[in-house]
Amino acid sequence: MKKSFLTLTALVTACAVGSSPLAAQASTASDAATALKSVADRALANDMLAWDFVEGITTEVGPRQAGTEAERRGRDWAMAWLRAHGFVNVADEPFEMETWVPGDIHRAEIVSPFPQPLVVQPLGGSASTGLEGITAEVVSFDNVAALQAAPEGSLAGKIAYISHAMTPTQDGSQYGFAGPARWIGAQLAKDKGALATVIKSVGTDYHRNPHTGGTTFRTPEGGSDVGRPVPTPAGALTLPDAANLERMFARADGRPIVMKLTLTPENLGTTTSGNVVGEIAGRNPALPPVLLACHIDSWWNAPGAIDDGAGCGIVAAAALNVAESGKPLRTIRVLMAGAEEVGLLGSSAYSEAHIDEKIGVGLESDFGADRIWRFESNFRETNEHLHNRLAASVARFGVANSDIVARGGADLNISRDQGGAIIDLQQDGTRYFDLHHTPDDTLDKIDIVQLRQNVAVWTQVVGILANEPRAIQTGAPIPVGLPTMGGS
Amino acid sequence: MKKSFLTLTALVTACAVGSSPLAAQASTASDAATALKSVADRALANDMLAWDFVEGITTEVGPRQAGTEAERRGRDWAMAWLRAHGFVNVADEPFEMETWVPGDIHRAEIVSPFPQPLVVQPLGGSASTGLEGITAEVVSFDNVAALQAAPEGSLAGKIAYISHAMTPTQDGSQYGFAGPARWIGAQLAKDKGALATVIKSVGTDYHRNPHTGGTTFRTPEGGSDVGRPVPTPAGALTLPDAANLERMFARADGRPIVMKLTLTPENLGTTTSGNVVGEIAGRNPALPPVLLACHIDSWWNAPGAIDDGAGCGIVAAAALNVAESGKPLRTIRVLMAGAEEVGLLGSSAYSEAHIDEKIGVGLESDFGADRIWRFESNFRETNEHLHNRLAASVARFGVANSDIVARGGADLNISRDQGGAIIDLQQDGTRYFDLHHTPDDTLDKIDIVQLRQNVAVWTQVVGILANEPRAIQTGAPIPVGLPTMGGS
Repeated sequence: MKKSFLTLTALVTACAVGSSPLAAQASTASDAATALKSVADRALANDMLAWDFVEGITTEVGPRQAGTEAERRGRDWAMAWLRAHGFVNVADEPFEMETWVPGDIHRAEIVSPFPQPLVVQPLGGSASTGLEGITAEVVSFDNVAALQAAPEGSLAGKIAYISHAMTPTQDGSQYGFAGPARWIGAQLAKDKGALATVIKSVGTDYHRNPHTGGTTFRTPEGGSDVGRPVPTPAGALTLPDAANLERMFARADGRPIVMKLTLTPENLGTTTSGNVVGEIAGRNPALPPVLLACHIDSWWNAPGAIDDGAGCGIVAAAALNVAESGKPLRTIRVLMAGAEEVGLLGSSAYSEAHIDEKIGVGLESDFGADRIWRFESNFRETNEHLHNRLAASVARFGVANSDIVARGGADLNISRDQGGAIIDLQQDGTRYFDLHHTPDDTLDKIDIVQLRQNVAVWTQVVGILANEPRAIQTGAPIPVGLPTMGGS
Repeated sequence: MKKSFLTLTALVTACAVGSSPLAAQASTASDAATALKSVADRALANDMLAWDFVEGITTEVGPRQAGTEAERRGRDWAMAWLRAHGFVNVADEPFEMETWVPGDIHRAEIVSPFPQPLVVQPLGGSASTGLEGITAEVVSFDNVAALQAAPEGSLAGKIAYISHAMTPTQDGSQYGFAGPARWIGAQLAKDKGALATVIKSVGTDYHRNPHTGGTTFRTPEGGSDVGRPVPTPAGALTLPDAANLERMFARADGRPIVMKLTLTPENLGTTTSGNVVGEIAGRNPALPPVLLACHIDSWWNAPGAIDDGAGCGIVAAAALNVAESGKPLRTIRVLMAGAEEVGLLGSSAYSEAHIDEKIGVGLESDFGADRIWRFESNFRETNEHLHNRLAASVARFGVANSDIVARGGADLNISRDQGGAIIDLQQDGTRYFDLHHTPDDTLDKIDIVQLRQNVAVWTQVVGILANEPRAIQTGAPIPVGLPTMGGS
C-alpha cells in the first residue's frame, strides 16, 4: 500500500481541529458549515484519497471474485487502508456462501456454416459444459419476450441465443430494459428444453469484452436437487460477436447455425466471504450512525475499478474529509460489503447481523465514478427542511434536486429492512454500461475530475448528515442527551 | 455469400454502356470524364459494394491467419465474390510458407507481490513456453533505447517488459516511433539473456484487447539452427494491463515483480498460402495494367475488418465502379495478397512470379476505412500534368495534393521492384491503432460514410489511370497501337 502524504496531513489537521483553540472558534453551526464547505470545495479541486484507494486496490489486489481468496485479500487490503487512514473499529465480519468460479476455458465456436471463434465468458452461476463442450444448433430470439413466446419443448437439444437492444442512458435505466436477457433468459430457455444459452452481453460498448453478471436458475421444489438451483451452461457474447452471429442468421439462407460451446465453471462449495466495516467515531455514540456503503468484491474478469473500487474510495474519502472539517456529531460507518455481485450476500448478512442497531441514514456509491447530477431522498415529504438543505448544499456542484423517492443501492438492505432514511446521489451512467462487468473495468476508465466531484458532493452531504442532531427521517428531536455543536 | 441486387444492376448498366448506342455517345474524353465523375459521386452517396465485401468476409469467414485453412477459405470466398461480381481471370496463385499459429493458452499472471492475472496474447513468431509456463522476475524498460542500454547478460533468467508512449496521429506515424518495441524488442532482450519478453501493446486504445503482430528474431549464421530464426516466448499486454504492471513497480518498494507467462504457439511447418487475383479487362491488353492491392489474411484474433477486409472491399468496389462508367482502356488488376501480416510473403511471391510483366501503376488500400485526406504519387516530378490532374479530380472529396513521394504499401513489392509508378491515397489513421491487430478489428468499427468516401476517391483515381494512354510515370507515348477513347 502506498501511504498518502496528503492523508496524513489531513488527519493531523483533523486532530488539531478537534483539540485546539481552533475547535472553540468553530463552535458555532455557521463556522462548522463553513469548514465543511471548505473541505468539500478542496476535495473538488484536489482530492487524492478516493483515487489512492481505487488505484491501490485495483493494482495491489486486482479482481476479487466473491468467496475466493482474492476477495479475502481485497478485504485485508481495505482494512489496512482504513486503519492507516485513521478509521476505528475496523473489522472483517465473515459470512459463509456457496462459491462459484468461472474456470479456465470459455469458448464459443461456430462450427457451420461459417466456422470461426466468437468471444464468450460464462455468466455467474452457469453450469459447466465439460471439457468436451456442447455442440448444437443455435435458435435466435430477438428478446426475452420472443423466447417466452416459444412453444414448450421447442428448444430441446438446442442452444438458445437471446438478443436485446440496449442503449446508453444517463440514468442507466435501460439496464432494467435489457437486463432480463441475462437475469432470467437461461432459466426460460431451459424451461423450453435448451441445453445451454448464450446472450448478447447486457452492455452498450462494441469491444470484444463480454459483460458477465449473475443469471438466476430456479430452485426445484422437489426431487434430489431440492434446495439448490439447477443451472445450464450460460454465457455472454460481446456485442461485436453477437452482431456477427445475427448477420450469420441473415446470410445462412435457412442453413442451421451450429455452435460448439465450452464453458468450465466450477462450484467450490461453501467458503467464507465477509463485510469490511470501519468508523469515524462521532461525538455522540448514542445517535444512530450515518452508513456509507459500497462493495469490495468484483467479477473475476476485471480489477473492479468502477464496480466498485471507486465507490469504496468515494465513501472512504468523504468520511475522512468530514472528519477533517471537525469531529462529527454522529458516527460515520463505512460498509464495504462482500459478495455483492453474486446476490447481495454481504448486504443481507450485514442486515441480519445488525438489524437491531438503528441506522440514521444510508447512502451507497456503486455506479461508477462519473459525476453526480441528481439528489434524491426518501424523506422529502417527512423532513422537507433537511431534504432541501442537503439538496441546496450541493447545487454548486451541478447536482439538481429531485422528487424521485430514493430506494438505495444493493448494499443498503439494512436501511430498507429497517424502513430507514435513504439518500441516492445519482451518478451519470452514460458510460457505465460500456464497462460494467467487463474486463475493461480498469483504473484508466476513471476520470479523476469527475471522481473528485463525487467526493466533494459526498463530503458535503455526509458532513451535514453526520452533524444532524434530529431524526433524519422525520426531523423530530431525538430523546437523548446531546452535546452542543462543537462540544465534546 | 449474399448477392447484392445493387451490384447486378450495376453490371447490367456497365454492359449496356459498353455495347449500346450510349457507348457511342460517351466516345469523347469529356463524356467519359463526366461518366466517371458521376459514378464516383454515386459511390460517395450510396456505395454498398465495399461494405458487402467486408461484411461478407468478416461474417462468413472470420479470422484468416496466414497459411491456415481459414486463410484458404478467405481466398475461396474472395474468388467467389469477384466472379459473382463480374471480374475475369480470377485465380488463386499459391505459394509455400512456414506457418506459425498462436495455440490456445495465453496467460500472464503476476505471482508476487500483487497476484492477479493480466491479459496477454502472443506476438507472431513467439516461441512456446510449454504448458508449464515460465516463472521469472520481470525487468521493466521504458522503451527500446533503455533495453539497448542494458548490460550484456543482465537479463539472464528474467522476463523483459518493454514500454513506450505512443499517441494517435492522423498519419499513423507514431507506429514507427513505438513499433520497435514489438518488431525488435524480443530479440534485443534475448541478446541480453532474457527468457521471454512481454511488451506494452503497440496501440493507442485502453481496452483489454492486446495488439499482436509479428516480432522478428535473428537467424543464426551457424550451428544446428542455421537458416531459421530462434525465437523466445514473446507477448503483448493490453495498455490497461501494462499500466497496471507499471503501477506495480511504483508500489513494490523494490520487491521483485514475478510473472508466470504461459504462451503455447506452434509451428505447423510448411503450408500453402496464396494470392487472389482478378481483373476488369481493358480495351487494350497490351498496355500495362493498373494494379490495386490489399491483403486477404488477418491475425487470428479478429475477423480483420479494417485490416484488411475494408481495403479489399474498397479496391474491388472501385474497379467495378470504373467498369460501370465504361470499359477502361487498361486492364485493372486486383491483387488480394496472402500472408501479408507475417512478412509480406504474398507480396514477395507475387513480385517474384510477375516481375517481367510491367505494371502501369500500383495503389494499395491497407490502413482501415476512415476517410482519405491526402494524395501522393511518386511521379509528381516526372509527369506533373497527370499528378496534378489526379489530385484535382479528388479535391471535391476533401483530398489535398501533396509533394510527399509515394512509397506504396506492403503489397506493392512488384511496383517497387520494377521501379514503377505508385500512388498512395492516405487514409485518416487517428483511430487505426486503437484497433490494429486486436480482437476489436470487427465490422462495427467501420463507418460506412467514410468507407464510401474511400470508394469514391478510388473510383475517381483508378478511372483516370485506367484510361490513361501515355506512360503514367513519364507521360511519354507508349509505342503500341492504341484504340481511340471509347472504341473497342
